[in-house]
Amino acid sequence: MTTVPEHVAAGLRAMEVEVPSWAYGNSGTRFKVFAQAGVPRDPYEKVADAAQVHRFTGAAPSVSLHIPWDRVEDYGKLTQHAEDLGVRLGVINANVFQDDDYMLGSVTHPDPRVRRKATDHLLECVDVMDATGSTDLKLWFSDGTNYPGQDDIRARQDRLAEALREVYDRLGDDQRMLLEYKLFEPAFYTMDVPDWGTAFAHCIALGEKAEVVVDTGHHAPGTNIEFIVATLLRAGRLGAFDFNSRFYADDDLMVGSADPFQLFRILHECVVGGAVTAESTVRFMLDQCHNIEPKIPGQIRSVMNVQESTAKALLVDHDALAAAQSAGDVLGANAVLMDAFDTDVRPLLAAFREEQGLDPDPMAAYAASGYADAIVADRVGGTQAGWGA
Amino acid sequence: MTTVPEHVAAGLRAMEVEVPSWAYGNSGTRFKVFAQAGVPRDPYEKVADAAQVHRFTGAAPSVSLHIPWDRVEDYGKLTQHAEDLGVRLGVINANVFQDDDYMLGSVTHPDPRVRRKATDHLLECVDVMDATGSTDLKLWFSDGTNYPGQDDIRARQDRLAEALREVYDRLGDDQRMLLEYKLFEPAFYTMDVPDWGTAFAHCIALGEKAEVVVDTGHHAPGTNIEFIVATLLRAGRLGAFDFNSRFYADDDLMVGSADPFQLFRILHECVVGGAVTAESTVRFMLDQCHNIEPKIPGQIRSVMNVQESTAKALLVDHDALAAAQSAGDVLGANAVLMDAFDTDVRPLLAAFREEQGLDPDPMAAYAASGYADAIVADRVGGTQAGWGA
Amino acid sequence: MTTVPEHVAAGLRAMEVEVPSWAYGNSGTRFKVFAQAGVPRDPYEKVADAAQVHRFTGAAPSVSLHIPWDRVEDYGKLTQHAEDLGVRLGVINANVFQDDDYMLGSVTHPDPRVRRKATDHLLECVDVMDATGSTDLKLWFSDGTNYPGQDDIRARQDRLAEALREVYDRLGDDQRMLLEYKLFEPAFYTMDVPDWGTAFAHCIALGEKAEVVVDTGHHAPGTNIEFIVATLLRAGRLGAFDFNSRFYADDDLMVGSADPFQLFRILHECVVGGAVTAESTVRFMLDQCHNIEPKIPGQIRSVMNVQESTAKALLVDHDALAAAQSAGDVLGANAVLMDAFDTDVRPLLAAFREEQGLDPDPMAAYAASGYADAIVADRVGGTQAGWGA
Amino acid sequence: MTTVPEHVAAGLRAMEVEVPSWAYGNSGTRFKVFAQAGVPRDPYEKVADAAQVHRFTGAAPSVSLHIPWDRVEDYGKLTQHAEDLGVRLGVINANVFQDDDYMLGSVTHPDPRVRRKATDHLLECVDVMDATGSTDLKLWFSDGTNYPGQDDIRARQDRLAEALREVYDRLGDDQRMLLEYKLFEPAFYTMDVPDWGTAFAHCIALGEKAEVVVDTGHHAPGTNIEFIVATLLRAGRLGAFDFNSRFYADDDLMVGSADPFQLFRILHECVVGGAVTAESTVRFMLDQCHNIEPKIPGQIRSVMNVQESTAKALLVDHDALAAAQSAGDVLGANAVLMDAFDTDVRPLLAAFREEQGLDPDPMAAYAASGYADAIVADRVGGTQAGWGA
Repeated sequence: MTTVPEHVAAGLRAMEVEVPSWAYGNSGTRFKVFAQAGVPRDPYEKVADAAQVHRFTGAAPSVSLHIPWDRVEDYGKLTQHAEDLGVRLGVINANVFQDDDYMLGSVTHPDPRVRRKATDHLLECVDVMDATGSTDLKLWFSDGTNYPGQDDIRARQDRLAEALREVYDRLGDDQRMLLEYKLFEPAFYTMDVPDWGTAFAHCIALGEKAEVVVDTGHHAPGTNIEFIVATLLRAGRLGAFDFNSRFYADDDLMVGSADPFQLFRILHECVVGGAVTAESTVRFMLDQCHNIEPKIPGQIRSVMNVQESTAKALLVDHDALAAAQSAGDVLGANAVLMDAFDTDVRPLLAAFREEQGLDPDPMAAYAASGYADAIVADRVGGTQAGWGA
Repeated sequence: MTTVPEHVAAGLRAMEVEVPSWAYGNSGTRFKVFAQAGVPRDPYEKVADAAQVHRFTGAAPSVSLHIPWDRVEDYGKLTQHAEDLGVRLGVINANVFQDDDYMLGSVTHPDPRVRRKATDHLLECVDVMDATGSTDLKLWFSDGTNYPGQDDIRARQDRLAEALREVYDRLGDDQRMLLEYKLFEPAFYTMDVPDWGTAFAHCIALGEKAEVVVDTGHHAPGTNIEFIVATLLRAGRLGAFDFNSRFYADDDLMVGSADPFQLFRILHECVVGGAVTAESTVRFMLDQCHNIEPKIPGQIRSVMNVQESTAKALLVDHDALAAAQSAGDVLGANAVLMDAFDTDVRPLLAAFREEQGLDPDPMAAYAASGYADAIVADRVGGTQAGWGA
Repeated sequence: MTTVPEHVAAGLRAMEVEVPSWAYGNSGTRFKVFAQAGVPRDPYEKVADAAQVHRFTGAAPSVSLHIPWDRVEDYGKLTQHAEDLGVRLGVINANVFQDDDYMLGSVTHPDPRVRRKATDHLLECVDVMDATGSTDLKLWFSDGTNYPGQDDIRARQDRLAEALREVYDRLGDDQRMLLEYKLFEPAFYTMDVPDWGTAFAHCIALGEKAEVVVDTGHHAPGTNIEFIVATLLRAGRLGAFDFNSRFYADDDLMVGSADPFQLFRILHECVVGGAVTAESTVRFMLDQCHNIEPKIPGQIRSVMNVQESTAKALLVDHDALAAAQSAGDVLGANAVLMDAFDTDVRPLLAAFREEQGLDPDPMAAYAASGYADAIVADRVGGTQAGWGA
Repeated sequence: MTTVPEHVAAGLRAMEVEVPSWAYGNSGTRFKVFAQAGVPRDPYEKVADAAQVHRFTGAAPSVSLHIPWDRVEDYGKLTQHAEDLGVRLGVINANVFQDDDYMLGSVTHPDPRVRRKATDHLLECVDVMDATGSTDLKLWFSDGTNYPGQDDIRARQDRLAEALREVYDRLGDDQRMLLEYKLFEPAFYTMDVPDWGTAFAHCIALGEKAEVVVDTGHHAPGTNIEFIVATLLRAGRLGAFDFNSRFYADDDLMVGSADPFQLFRILHECVVGGAVTAESTVRFMLDQCHNIEPKIPGQIRSVMNVQESTAKALLVDHDALAAAQSAGDVLGANAVLMDAFDTDVRPLLAAFREEQGLDPDPMAAYAASGYADAIVADRVGGTQAGWGA
């Protein structure tokens, strides 16, 4: 039987993947949202679905919430619900892009009334963090402009900085602000936080509790994401990942499905930079849209993809790599890295799961569990969750 | 006063821009559709709004319909309605992307039942053409796959060819099929008609009544669109344009707003290739989303942008250009083209409009007309049109 | 010991990778060409180096020539030299981009004198084919323009068509014309054959002996290359591959090094389309620049990468794939494909090599052979081969 | 006659464009460098050519040098030579990419010996600054890797930081370090300074004398350059521009030739951010390759393009723009900007030139001057300048 090297097992244990509550609701494109049977109707059902992912992978112990999509009357009750199901609530995601007031921006809107409203929502999210015990506030702003001249690029940065400052100052000692960037969509000329440089500049202006989120689908074509990861780790400012994959834009496909070698390279930099350890504060989250595939299996497969890439990254022979690098042996150094990537780690992961008392094949185990049929049968009536709820 | 050279006036008269009925309804991104006051509730109101664009520009005499969004009981009545408002119905656009059955494709779906349903819809669209007198059927397929392996690329081409053949054979003698291509969205791994080459290959297999549609937002970054235009004109297979503009992906911004020089170059190739004449069968259509700007002014401005670029293209000194080109005078040839682009043609267009009995400033004239306020006041109740209706 | 399934072994035997003579000379970027010790000084030495790649991989039995870089007085002698070394001469590549006359184009140049000169060179290449027994003429044109207006896009297509026609008509019954396309570089506004659609259109106009070459580095960002491969195979017009890999533009890195999953997907389409068989006429060639790594090991590694991706593609369970595809099982179909990709085929290839009497580790075997040291010692004096010689 | 508004004239007077000495030498692509008649053989002749650009535009009073390409024995003599011709020496550009030692990097090379050599060259450039009176050291590093694993991304950042620190500390009180970034080329996997974020992070670590250079051709597709400009101006870290234009990669075409609207938007942000004033320390430089067009006219045309875009940017009605922006009038605000862009400023610039005692048409005036014929006649023998000399 395959044995799992201890340093690999330690790394895999440290690799906890947080799943997003909204992945279990319906999603789609501007052209069509195809509804799926059995989709949750409320945050409690979303958490229940998320718990299935952890049940079969053992690697997804927490669930990100999205406010207001996951607003509930009693966060203590939701927290307890999660614990009862063997998971916990994670990062709180603010949403300042769906109110009618935000058509031209939220915290960067030219109208101070709208900015106040948006900032108040961010502060409310910190309240939710206090209520749930969440330590991380994740901020993604859809703010931007569609047409040259539409608004003043620089003034919008000033407004953004002002709002971030107010929210930052509201954070507790153990709370962080995670600032996400995105190249485009929904704005098509400027985004107010389009790239890691902009997020980084705001974070260093704010203070040590502000860190950058890397969403793997939010870059221009050709961007070397692992370079950004290495650079942010070096600067001590990598807060979290939103994992997904893409061929074109922000496709939000399953992580590892479009370019598994890229995912491996990213995780290699995480290993090199110390982010795959029990002590690391870097969060690894999924942020995906299962538009045409079933959602829970889509999440399970994604967690498995992260685990497989992590295992490969942990298998890199760092001594051999360093020796080839310092010798200027281009092909030799590349070969060391490729040797790990080319390894079939599925037997290793099967063994790792069995050591943890899990089924070695999470996809098959979930399929056999009957959960999919049960939710289709049970969840009759109500309004299915989606990006609007 | 500015005089309009006769060949420029002739070209401008030949440049009829067709507007899409759906541009007057609400649109947005997957994140949010911001509703606008006064938006039409049915095809009759859409045509009424479209007629305003023609009223003030004199250059937008026809309206594309989208089936089923614009399905009505009596197409004769809608045709008459358009004529009463001074416009006419134009291209019929099929829609095989919003029925729940089409989650994995329409005419390329692995299930023959779904393919039959989709093809039947396309045939219904030809019926609508017969009823409205429209000569052109425009086909855009959202069909594609999100994940490698999801379906057989080649088998989908065979299915596509089969459906196109059936529809092509149904066309009357004066009817054409216009086949559109798109790089990505809503499918994120393969689109079944991703590029002009694929559309072209299907068209030549079908016969002379099949031509290619160039949507200016449907290309990979860096694609030289005017080269495609020139190539399709040379091959006699350029059927139509869907005009819009983009900075990133299929942003669907107002044509000419993101890269006016590109629009000029495209129209220069149209002039060179004989497409800007009274005899040309190339259709110039808008296909845009006014997500955050008012819709009718957005359309008026777009028509004006096309007119300005057309005027500049018509001003190119072709003799001087040919002389510099054949002499290998790189800077000289470029300068001839830039001279036309750098010209401020707004006075010329103002004069052209006045000669036609129009207000020289369509935007101001529309604003002064009171139409915007009137529709906000009148269109109370009902369901606003959007991409779903 | 690993056994090689017979259908995999058959596919691997059919997968012959042709190496380019110029890969053994110096190459670089416009910023610097770093010379390497031991580089060949003439076509004979290039062929000798190429023979090493075949000696250790058993999968690279032929060598592409580039005229005039590989012009020799006696092609019969060069042919014999190759045979003596266990390889054969392959495709003849024309070069109409390095003469001073070609600054503004070769066969598309505005000056008929230059076009005549360029076409004559292409005809000379057919003479070389007659002399070497090569069956394939590969044409890549650097022709294009840098500035809008510089030349007439459509007129250049006419000139191109005229030259291709003349050369096509000169081909013998067993000779083919392989037409390559490229998005950009060295021209920066238009290339005269920028995409597969343009190459395809010329090929169908010419006749059945004209086919398209897919260079994996010659596409716009986001282009789905395997879709093009499937489409060209369906149309019977895929002539050959120029393999290499890229992160950004035409980086010409070792095939499989930037995106091994893409290479696998391409080869999967080749398998599906019948191109990996003994009967196939599709040629698999390398076209790479080993700017900073040693050349012969760079080529060996590249051939191995092709073999590994081919083996994975051959391992795809086509029955399971078809079943999942026709059932609309998105995750299941994707999993079938990924199962093959995730397999570590290196043991299988080691076994395959041993069955052929080869060392299971070609890189180590070459390193141990002493050849690298020998050429450094022997090749003293003379002018190293590069892109200019 | 056209009158030039005083604030426009003031802005145009402040807009001094620095030309690069290397633009007058031969350049090309990796495929071919086409030599042009009359090209300079040494730095003195390059400066003489540069002086022609200033002579006819009045807007290009300084010349960037590139060490070692422009290394001379007596910098005082070269300085005097420039002054005699009516221009002055400008920024000193270091070159650590052409020595054979730099194949795997310069200041980031794994070997400390190579790093020492590279850093010593940078220090030598500061010596040259002392000798010429230049205040700015421009650093562009070709350093990077071609293959994943080739070297340690993070370690290279540490080495880079160490070298920059040493050079920074060597700067005099009135000297600055300008750090340039580039996405790719000549390295194809990682560049050590690939984006503005990386350059910015190093600059803030170094101190206030370190600023970022924006080369308009050094970004990923879709990057919004004017956003970066606005952001760097807001942060007080925009040191300089390297102007050129591109359709694909780092094409190095004449600035304004590929996307004149983008150039206008960039200069609009410069005007908004106070960079087009007599007090501004932002340098506007050209960095272009006139591969197929004559060099001096290529430079003159480029300076004119910058002037035209600057004039348009200065014509923007800022009060109207701010009013529309704060009112959320998307189309109105865009129209204010477009109104300036659509204006034909050539008459204005002709008037401006005449006020300065210049010919209103610099291209025609240069052509009539006979200088081009004279240098072709005079510069016989010797070695033409290029990127290697």
